[in-house]
Amino acid sequence: MSDQHIASAFDRDLEGVQAQIMKMGGLVEDAIRLSAQSLETRDADLAEKVRTADKSIDALEQLINEQAARVIALRAPTAIDLRLVLSVIKISANLERIGDYAKNMAKRTHVLSQIPPVNDSAGAIRRMARSVEAMLKDALDAYIQRDADLAMDVIARDEDVDQMYNALFRQFLTYMMEDQGNITACMHLHFIAKNTERMGDHVTSIAEQTVYLVTGEHPEEDRPKADKTSNVAKG
Amino acid sequence: MSDQHIASAFDRDLEGVQAQIMKMGGLVEDAIRLSAQSLETRDADLAEKVRTADKSIDALEQLINEQAARVIALRAPTAIDLRLVLSVIKISANLERIGDYAKNMAKRTHVLSQIPPVNDSAGAIRRMARSVEAMLKDALDAYIQRDADLAMDVIARDEDVDQMYNALFRQFLTYMMEDQGNITACMHLHFIAKNTERMGDHVTSIAEQTVYLVTGEHPEEDRPKADKTSNVAKG
Repeated sequence: MSDQHIASAFDRDLEGVQAQIMKMGGLVEDAIRLSAQSLETRDADLAEKVRTADKSIDALEQLINEQAARVIALRAPTAIDLRLVLSVIKISANLERIGDYAKNMAKRTHVLSQIPPVNDSAGAIRRMARSVEAMLKDALDAYIQRDADLAMDVIARDEDVDQMYNALFRQFLTYMMEDQGNITACMHLHFIAKNTERMGDHVTSIAEQTVYLVTGEHPEEDRPKADKTSNVAKG
Repeated sequence: MSDQHIASAFDRDLEGVQAQIMKMGGLVEDAIRLSAQSLETRDADLAEKVRTADKSIDALEQLINEQAARVIALRAPTAIDLRLVLSVIKISANLERIGDYAKNMAKRTHVLSQIPPVNDSAGAIRRMARSVEAMLKDALDAYIQRDADLAMDVIARDEDVDQMYNALFRQFLTYMMEDQGNITACMHLHFIAKNTERMGDHVTSIAEQTVYLVTGEHPEEDRPKADKTSNVAKG
């Protein structure tokens, strides 16, 4: 077998496992969108669909891990090829976490639909989720196309998501102070908003993997940390 | 070079990278303990120490990733040997996340020390953190000794941590309803309690890795999910 053959067998294997990543990414994008939608429209059936779909996401992560291990064992890749296979493991772990957060959001649809809505909070969370979904789409495109510029753009956009979360945190404090009937709903909504902000962090982590793959440098150092709520002493 | 030589070179490499995991684990155990202590004693200097130490934890994760990739590239391990090296990458990622949560807890020491304490909430969080720290110690011991029974024991103990979180969630709701002067503090404390509960989830994930390494089976399916707060409609 010539080097040529070995190289293309590896490429074929890698393409196979990357196709699974894109499939998993598509399911996670749906989960983000549908969980936020179920929250806003108080749709218990849709929430249940998100919870069921999470099992497929988890199964895909396991499959991707096994495929990646098999590629390493069979092809013994080194240098950039090895980095590529290892990135698949990292990215699928990030996708699995995002799917978990979406599932947790869907789980709270039931309790929140039993109590009065708090202004447009569910709408604000849905808009935040939409930003994260768009970031994820671009992060996966950047990964497949090895586009470091697009990946850096995704990293920069995470700051907008952080700002949306900061604004919500302050609003929740205000709503709770104004009317203690809002307290329970706001505790759940805060939880969901924070999870959505964390989804953005995991998308950022996928984008950082891409920058590392393309440039060989970790970009984390330059990222501003825009969750400022640890300093909020009053609403 | 005989097979014997290759095997022992691999074992030496693996021991080296596992020693880094234990070093990282020790730093993360300290971070859990000291962040909770800084919160309870309102000690800003100690909180600052935790934040500084997190940089060493992050640097160790990067080092472990590079060492693991080097072992794979040099030794081309397969089967169980490959699984062992890949587990190192997964476990260091879990340790890094736990360190991040501890850093986030420490960050909130400042704002919480400016407002009145809410009963013994900080003490309750410290006790919860102590449980997680003990679980982490055992999870790492189970990993190094390939002790699936100890790892299963760690997984079971995560339910206690979840129960502690559930109890705190209800208490926070009650405190906020009783006195709206507690709202800001309770929002921060809830955030910290939830992060501590998540630390437990990451420790559980380390224990699950060990079970998988030893038995070849994923234990997740049997794990009860004991965060019941998604159903709490009132405090």
